[in-house]
Amino acid sequence: MSESRSGVPLGPIAILAGSGELPVRLADRLVETGRTVRILAFRGFCERRVKARADAVVNLLDLSRIIALLETWRPAAVTLAGGLTRPSAAALMGAYSAYRDREHVAAVIARGDDNLLRGAVELLESRGFALAGVRDLAPELLAEGGLYGAVVPDPAARLSIERGFRMLEALSPYDVGQAAVVSGERVVAIEGPEGTDRMLARVRSLTRGGLLRRRKSRGGVLVKGPKAGQDLRVDLPAIGPRTIVNASRAGLDGIAIAQGLTLVLDREATVAAADRAGLFLVGVERAGLTDAADD
Amino acid sequence: MSESRSGVPLGPIAILAGSGELPVRLADRLVETGRTVRILAFRGFCERRVKARADAVVNLLDLSRIIALLETWRPAAVTLAGGLTRPSAAALMGAYSAYRDREHVAAVIARGDDNLLRGAVELLESRGFALAGVRDLAPELLAEGGLYGAVVPDPAARLSIERGFRMLEALSPYDVGQAAVVSGERVVAIEGPEGTDRMLARVRSLTRGGLLRRRKSRGGVLVKGPKAGQDLRVDLPAIGPRTIVNASRAGLDGIAIAQGLTLVLDREATVAAADRAGLFLVGVERAGLTDAADD
Repeated sequence: MSESRSGVPLGPIAILAGSGELPVRLADRLVETGRTVRILAFRGFCERRVKARADAVVNLLDLSRIIALLETWRPAAVTLAGGLTRPSAAALMGAYSAYRDREHVAAVIARGDDNLLRGAVELLESRGFALAGVRDLAPELLAEGGLYGAVVPDPAARLSIERGFRMLEALSPYDVGQAAVVSGERVVAIEGPEGTDRMLARVRSLTRGGLLRRRKSRGGVLVKGPKAGQDLRVDLPAIGPRTIVNASRAGLDGIAIAQGLTLVLDREATVAAADRAGLFLVGVERAGLTDAADD
Repeated sequence: MSESRSGVPLGPIAILAGSGELPVRLADRLVETGRTVRILAFRGFCERRVKARADAVVNLLDLSRIIALLETWRPAAVTLAGGLTRPSAAALMGAYSAYRDREHVAAVIARGDDNLLRGAVELLESRGFALAGVRDLAPELLAEGGLYGAVVPDPAARLSIERGFRMLEALSPYDVGQAAVVSGERVVAIEGPEGTDRMLARVRSLTRGGLLRRRKSRGGVLVKGPKAGQDLRVDLPAIGPRTIVNASRAGLDGIAIAQGLTLVLDREATVAAADRAGLFLVGVERAGLTDAADD
């Protein structure tokens, strides 16, 4: 089979579509480059416009239907795009235990998000499907290096950024910390399963509660990038306009994202929001944050 | 001057007393061993029984009065005991800038809690006072190794404990993470300036929100110990009955603390609460968590 320049075989791409605008953006890009696209939208997660364009709308946990559809479509590659709020352990156990023994599923659940997604990937791969990520299919959707908007980080903010990314790299064996907030030299919050928005809300309440002292009324940087073991084919860190609003509410000076390893959702609106809030947004090269699939 | 076996010169000990029972426990121990004790209680922080026993009650930020009292008492050593909710940056700036230039104070504030306490220590030491910690004065108040109550951690919990402490050790250069929660192999929360109780509340809400899956209804371990650079003379990690209650509400199986490096407040009540809640409590030797003063 012939291959496109990105290494993904030519032929239809199946997009398993979660929430947000990414599934549509990705579909548009693929169609622009002459690809055929099939969209499998997850009920309760996908936006209306994704649903309107979808070839099928299925329950996230209806694995037998998902696999049957994919077997009909015979895609050159399958990609996961958009957000999926994690279902409960019980729901996952039920869905997966038809395909894997319960012990194995329970072990995967206990091991963390990365391993959970890896389990899903293994399942699809074991059924003969090739997984591809946004990075393979449309790398132009990922964060570029350098400054995005009008605001420039000062030297102190650059030191905070460096410190934050180093800390995330040190954490990478532990399947935690896709993002952190650094104020001056101090790491004030590390993201767990609660996600970036709730971590930023925490920083906001630290400030209000007087637990976070800053030199000025503002101060601090959000750094975000993948965990080192993360499979970027199925789970890309992302920021968007909402991230900017929450970072501003938390009193931060700006945001640094790992270049080529982070999605900027709705780029125009994101940059406009950053400029409006007076926050910088910068893409930074981080060799230490690598893709498990690259190893 | 002659010295006691702990290396602290003989003579009165000045206890700067914050909240909780530690100041009284420490004073009792010191008196039992034949020491003279002077208590300087911080208004608004100390408990009534500490206030009743205090030689002076002062405002935390009234540094000139604190130093004047210490100069009158001429203690063999000064120790800080009990909790102090951090005052605001503005209040600290005002208090310290009489003794240090504002730039220096601002830099200390930006650098984090450890550095802030180090600043206070440097100030007292620069005035000729010797600092001593609970570890030097009454090491028997610190966590012992081994099991405290009736509940025994299972092998899976022991792996979580090991993983949690390794992760805290990896974080130690970053002045964050005196505690963490590990569920299975997964680090689900790392403590920032919000403190252990609020971190445990976060874990509780992760579980409720379905963001934290567990094999059973319970699952997970709180690990707690000092950050590697922490000055244990002035800032000891501590747990108490409230920690047990909050860990139980967060659905945890138990608590592991760094032996010899963590305070167990109100030990009897703490162990009774753990037994009642069905949580294990264990002291673990961690060579990787060392005292800055030991370096």
